[in-house]
Amino acid sequence: MSKIPYRIYLTEQEMPRQWYNLRSDMPELPDPYINPGTMKPAVLEDLYPVFCEELAKQEMDNTTRYVDIPEEILEFYKIYRPSPLCRAYNLEKALDTPAKIYFKFEGNNTSGSHKLNSAVAQVYYAKKQGITSLTTETGAGQWGTALSEACSYFDMPLTVYMVKVSSQQKPYRKAIIETFGGKVIPSPSDKTEVGRSILKKNPETGGSLGCAISEAIEHAVKTENCRYVLGSVLNQVLLHQSIIGLEAKAAMDKIGEYPDIVIGCAGGGSNLGGLIAPFMQDKLTGRKNPYFIAVEPASCPSMTRGKYAYDFCDTGRVTPLAKMYTLGCEFIPSANHAGGLRYHGMSPVISKLYHDGYLDEAKAYEQTRVFDAAALFAKYETILPAPESSHAIRAAIDEALKCRLTGEEKTILFGLTGTGYFDMAAYMQYNEGMMTDYIPTDEDLKPGFDALPTL
Amino acid sequence: MSKIPYRIYLTEQEMPRQWYNLRSDMPELPDPYINPGTMKPAVLEDLYPVFCEELAKQEMDNTTRYVDIPEEILEFYKIYRPSPLCRAYNLEKALDTPAKIYFKFEGNNTSGSHKLNSAVAQVYYAKKQGITSLTTETGAGQWGTALSEACSYFDMPLTVYMVKVSSQQKPYRKAIIETFGGKVIPSPSDKTEVGRSILKKNPETGGSLGCAISEAIEHAVKTENCRYVLGSVLNQVLLHQSIIGLEAKAAMDKIGEYPDIVIGCAGGGSNLGGLIAPFMQDKLTGRKNPYFIAVEPASCPSMTRGKYAYDFCDTGRVTPLAKMYTLGCEFIPSANHAGGLRYHGMSPVISKLYHDGYLDEAKAYEQTRVFDAAALFAKYETILPAPESSHAIRAAIDEALKCRLTGEEKTILFGLTGTGYFDMAAYMQYNEGMMTDYIPTDEDLKPGFDALPTL
Repeated sequence: MSKIPYRIYLTEQEMPRQWYNLRSDMPELPDPYINPGTMKPAVLEDLYPVFCEELAKQEMDNTTRYVDIPEEILEFYKIYRPSPLCRAYNLEKALDTPAKIYFKFEGNNTSGSHKLNSAVAQVYYAKKQGITSLTTETGAGQWGTALSEACSYFDMPLTVYMVKVSSQQKPYRKAIIETFGGKVIPSPSDKTEVGRSILKKNPETGGSLGCAISEAIEHAVKTENCRYVLGSVLNQVLLHQSIIGLEAKAAMDKIGEYPDIVIGCAGGGSNLGGLIAPFMQDKLTGRKNPYFIAVEPASCPSMTRGKYAYDFCDTGRVTPLAKMYTLGCEFIPSANHAGGLRYHGMSPVISKLYHDGYLDEAKAYEQTRVFDAAALFAKYETILPAPESSHAIRAAIDEALKCRLTGEEKTILFGLTGTGYFDMAAYMQYNEGMMTDYIPTDEDLKPGFDALPTL
Repeated sequence: MSKIPYRIYLTEQEMPRQWYNLRSDMPELPDPYINPGTMKPAVLEDLYPVFCEELAKQEMDNTTRYVDIPEEILEFYKIYRPSPLCRAYNLEKALDTPAKIYFKFEGNNTSGSHKLNSAVAQVYYAKKQGITSLTTETGAGQWGTALSEACSYFDMPLTVYMVKVSSQQKPYRKAIIETFGGKVIPSPSDKTEVGRSILKKNPETGGSLGCAISEAIEHAVKTENCRYVLGSVLNQVLLHQSIIGLEAKAAMDKIGEYPDIVIGCAGGGSNLGGLIAPFMQDKLTGRKNPYFIAVEPASCPSMTRGKYAYDFCDTGRVTPLAKMYTLGCEFIPSANHAGGLRYHGMSPVISKLYHDGYLDEAKAYEQTRVFDAAALFAKYETILPAPESSHAIRAAIDEALKCRLTGEEKTILFGLTGTGYFDMAAYMQYNEGMMTDYIPTDEDLKPGFDALPTL
């Protein structure tokens, strides 16, 4: 039998032509969004001022199982997809483990991450509806980059509210967004009411994702024919990101493999939800029983220490309420936290699957342990991973080391969501031994929980 | 007939298992290296203090046509190769050209360029011989990154002399080299005699590639069991880089294509020499007659304005003399020059092919026109190209625009050597309209020519 290749690429013919809607197979659906004005379940029309119609429909559609990917999006996907399914032979050898380690690598595109998969879809539908500009927020910058690429391609003007501390720490992220024609505004800004109000309360704030979301939404609602787009958390994003899991599953099929364990890093849930989608379908329908692990930073532990409750998706409390694991919409990770995965909540779909026991495990790591894994991975697999992705690497390594102890030949699949080329400041800290950890105390978390809305 | 895919990947089975030595098919060989001590043609043993034995042999071997790629190097190649051959459908459409544009994309590895192809080979042979440390120089930083990746993989200590102005302008390049365990010393430094001497003459100098080479060689020669490695110019590097052209040709064979025009950017010649190798073989042996274009910066015009003469490969004048197109070994591009392609000379093989008319054309572009092409390419192909690679993009676009005028359906192949993620400072300049051009005057070039050694 010939050895499984290091890299498995699907052909264009083998690429998925439909997204998979995980909600269609969930025994119980996530609780509905609540309109904060009426305090009643949101209806489709409630979303139209914020999202374009097709995306609003995808957001609310819990029944359609497979959604055709429009031809124009498929054509764009073919520029940078399929992404490779990779066998980490060298890492396996270095760990001396009987486990087989696979990773789905989403970093080989200029956005540097999986975020492009949903960006192109969201811009396409907005363009088709005749929307004439878009707004969004970005934290670590991957989403802003991906969206500016897609907007450039479709000639769609874009304004990005970038968390102020990120725009200062990552001037080159800002530069790449601008190279693709996006306009970057550090958030909180004086361009919006919510920004001015937050600045008034706390003039020195470095901003947060929740705050940038509020500003971007206000901008969209107040600008004619403008809509807001979001890179994670939402049902529509998980739908688009299912391309990751569908490709991974098809590639594993080709080599006769199936994962015993599927691992994804978890911020808002976009990568995790996309990667696990078809494997979770197998579990929900009783065909297979893979073990799912979500990995988050100990400094932003929404799944491992958050409450499963209704909360706002933004700091300004203008979005619908979503039932999710949350640290409270005003939560901001401690200043020493590097990289993304800094959102206060978690995708309602992922939250529900975790709450109901289908997503088996959530675990949190301190960042120095995550960078240890990143450095080891870089040495043996010669890919410099994003800090976010490295959470999944850490967990995959730990599972592989367990296999070394038990002798089990488990098949591990993890999502390598992106590259770390714009995170070198964090790597420098790590290289110089200057990186620190901070685990929030219960005291730190209490104000966020106390401020949760009551229904 | 089905449409040619956007991306063509060879399978592992289809990947080349041999490098191709272009010298074996040249009607006339490049003039030999001259030992500056004896002023006689260098012999193999002259190279042993600097290069490990196997690489010295490859450097001097003008007859072996195909060289088996060792299994350990093939295994490394499989981590990041084959690189895709890409059809630039969107660019073609944007240019409204009947030309078919293909590019071989070498940027999808952490070094961000083709440099890794030779780095892994050079480290492997050194390790095999029992060499215990390596030195090199780096300018824009791609070579230093590639080499540090390869050294990390093979557990080989590495010292990188990095052109001082680059290490200041690109702290993140330095950081990534350090993440892979390489030690970075800004050049000129006080660590070497040649460095101290250059600093004494010009304490404020930002350094040059030629100077960094001198320091790295001195370090290697004076350190026990240490050797020097170089990322371009040399025959051995062109041999290893032939993997680019061999893969490109195999992929074009698969889809029934053959290029009418082959375009590569040219600094020291590593990418150009590798890309054109098998196509040049076709020309030298009379099988086909593709048209070859080398593209260089107007600010460092070794081929278009240099002399074809014997010169040193370094500023310190310690290397053998090579017959090549050169601006003189003390030439330094003007301070506003962004990116790489800043070496004073050109690969002796490339120089000879150009001098003898097999390499059809060399052209030079000002950098603002190059960044215009880069921005256009990024918009339509959603890859942010390296400034170096963008020289080839500029020429490919211009050839495609010619085809629009003539109606010719030419097949154009160019080398996209890498990505621009560590060149965002230059992109920022460009975005803000602050990028300038400088074409050296004849007066500027005269001192370099006057200082050429006389044989």
